[in-house]
Amino acid sequence: MASCTTIYSISTTPTKTNWGFHQSIHRHESHVFFYSSTRRTKRFNGFSEISCSAEEAKTVVIGLAADSGCGKSTFMRRLTSVFGGTAEPPKGGNPDSNTLISDTTTVICLDDYHSLDRTGRKEKGVTALDPRANDFDLMYEQVKKLKEGITVEKPIYNHVTGLLDPPEVIQPPKILVIEGLHPMYDPRVRDLLDFSIYLDISNDVKFAWKIQRDMAERGHSLESIKASIEARKPDFDAYIDPQKQYADAVIEVLPTQLIPGDNEGKILRVRLIMKEGVKYFNPVYLFDEGSTISWIPCGRKLSCSYPGIKFSYGPDTYFSNEVSVLEMDGQFDRLDELIYVESHLSNISTKFYGEVTQQMLKHAEFPGSNNGTGLFQTIVGLKIRDLYEQILSSKASATLQASKV
Amino acid sequence: MASCTTIYSISTTPTKTNWGFHQSIHRHESHVFFYSSTRRTKRFNGFSEISCSAEEAKTVVIGLAADSGCGKSTFMRRLTSVFGGTAEPPKGGNPDSNTLISDTTTVICLDDYHSLDRTGRKEKGVTALDPRANDFDLMYEQVKKLKEGITVEKPIYNHVTGLLDPPEVIQPPKILVIEGLHPMYDPRVRDLLDFSIYLDISNDVKFAWKIQRDMAERGHSLESIKASIEARKPDFDAYIDPQKQYADAVIEVLPTQLIPGDNEGKILRVRLIMKEGVKYFNPVYLFDEGSTISWIPCGRKLSCSYPGIKFSYGPDTYFSNEVSVLEMDGQFDRLDELIYVESHLSNISTKFYGEVTQQMLKHAEFPGSNNGTGLFQTIVGLKIRDLYEQILSSKASATLQASKV
Repeated sequence: MASCTTIYSISTTPTKTNWGFHQSIHRHESHVFFYSSTRRTKRFNGFSEISCSAEEAKTVVIGLAADSGCGKSTFMRRLTSVFGGTAEPPKGGNPDSNTLISDTTTVICLDDYHSLDRTGRKEKGVTALDPRANDFDLMYEQVKKLKEGITVEKPIYNHVTGLLDPPEVIQPPKILVIEGLHPMYDPRVRDLLDFSIYLDISNDVKFAWKIQRDMAERGHSLESIKASIEARKPDFDAYIDPQKQYADAVIEVLPTQLIPGDNEGKILRVRLIMKEGVKYFNPVYLFDEGSTISWIPCGRKLSCSYPGIKFSYGPDTYFSNEVSVLEMDGQFDRLDELIYVESHLSNISTKFYGEVTQQMLKHAEFPGSNNGTGLFQTIVGLKIRDLYEQILSSKASATLQASKV
Repeated sequence: MASCTTIYSISTTPTKTNWGFHQSIHRHESHVFFYSSTRRTKRFNGFSEISCSAEEAKTVVIGLAADSGCGKSTFMRRLTSVFGGTAEPPKGGNPDSNTLISDTTTVICLDDYHSLDRTGRKEKGVTALDPRANDFDLMYEQVKKLKEGITVEKPIYNHVTGLLDPPEVIQPPKILVIEGLHPMYDPRVRDLLDFSIYLDISNDVKFAWKIQRDMAERGHSLESIKASIEARKPDFDAYIDPQKQYADAVIEVLPTQLIPGDNEGKILRVRLIMKEGVKYFNPVYLFDEGSTISWIPCGRKLSCSYPGIKFSYGPDTYFSNEVSVLEMDGQFDRLDELIYVESHLSNISTKFYGEVTQQMLKHAEFPGSNNGTGLFQTIVGLKIRDLYEQILSSKASATLQASKV
């Protein structure tokens, strides 16, 4: 283990600031400059607890992009659950904070980088999807700082009031997840991501889900739902959708093909599109890596109710990138189906037999627990844990090498 | 090992007989009655060498049905090759004998049980496919005798002259294969079979093959080929085709589905239909026993030329029987494709890694070596070897149990 030499300076913490102009805040932040003997530089600002360990990894940053209301929060709960512990808002902070913190993982919502509040957007006639309503400079600088181990004061966009609230302190976690509309939009932010995921919900399914949520649960009319989707579409197509080309993994949610002509959005066909050649990420496969497979597990060993379950797997290209695609169409009836399916998947990065099934059972009440959305979200969670551990271990061995010099 | 008590009587061997009336021949045959201490009765006629071993199995009988010119002889050469050694006609016998003998296996052609020669059939207006042109009583009694370990004098149908030649001596082999038009037609013969196979060539492929052989190689006209197929069809449908319902394994040969509209018969889709619940026979499977799979092995690890290769596997019913079906569409380009495919098949009863590939390579010049016909014939050969060895070992252990009493 490397010993640490501490050379530091502390300046004053910034006081009350106009939170409408985040861009300038970080310029006033104060830092602890911290040099280790292994020539690795770590910085902490005044909020940080200073700790020193040569093996300590810098924060691993994961980006999760999706339209609002596309199951990101469920995904996040599944992801943090994989790491153990529960994710909660920062203690004693703003009750409307969008942040979730667990032992290893901090999830920040990129809506917090809105540069225009609800009124401001209305005045300027831009949606929240428009880059002009978002502060990418601040997003970049704060994500960069967190990645370098530096605590930041992140603004809060209050979804209840539509206003920008005073900032909250975010300490660098082991894993930082930035989730929202634009994690891969700005090339600088994109470059900070160790892994990126895009949740791609097809229009048919999005519509079915909105009807379910906004009409059945919130009493909106079908027309208003249609109008709201239509209104978002141009900006969505211009600014959100193109990000999927940069994602390391895309979870595509489509209507089933098991029932001809079905677009009810109840039975789903979910595709996990995994980029090849991503460091620390080995795509999941079914039976035979790199070949093209379809698999109907229902048969002599497994009985499924109509319309059954069909898996597909194979190589493909996606935005000129070589990818592997795993697809699940249909839904599970019972637990034994899930463990049966799990046992036939390879490279799922479980730590014990049945871990996927255990995770899915643990959150059986989450939306999508009986279909490919829940399954693939859980698997992506395991892959991220694996990626994190690989990065950690590669850093540890690099540090060990350096300490021997 | 059990000791043997020998009580025997020898009568005279039948002399010159009118071979037009085989039915009566066996009634004149002489026998050695041979009782072992394990209460198992063995009989040998005067031609047999008498040997005594309690472990010795009675002959295992395999039936192979197919229309003439459907690749039975290739299948037989593949099968005998699996057991090692080469199959040759009986030494010093009729040069037009249809029999092939190897160390373990004797293949007899059921055409030898024609009761009417070519002239006789013409006179009576029946084809060779008609049961009235065949002597099922004699077929039954001789197969039964061979199964019981008794040497027989089997007639010979001379394909060159179209006449019935004097009989040849057939000693009970370890494995007797009866191949021809009617191995499963007569219920008594059918009951003697330890395993049965039906080669089912679709009309399109049969036609393409006949054109290849009879037109290109023998100078027949397209019209005469069509006429000959049409002429055989009613009897084929009435007497040959229905046997496939009794087969333990059916090899179905169809035109490819990889090239839409193709019926050239050059690229084949071959299906191995395997009955479930057959003693000593565990159907081959792909990846996951009992589920439904399609597999295109061409991809990152394997490059295939157009139109590629597609495997399918799954449960099905065939004439009300539960079956598993393994299908191969397309053809192999190179050896590494074959070993790759072999390594993904289960229950193929090989004795070492790559045995299927080795067998296929050994007979690379045989028709069908690059497609499913050769592959499935080889696999069925291995399954028969496995079945034979299981029967042998179950007999040995039964004998051991009996000797302990």
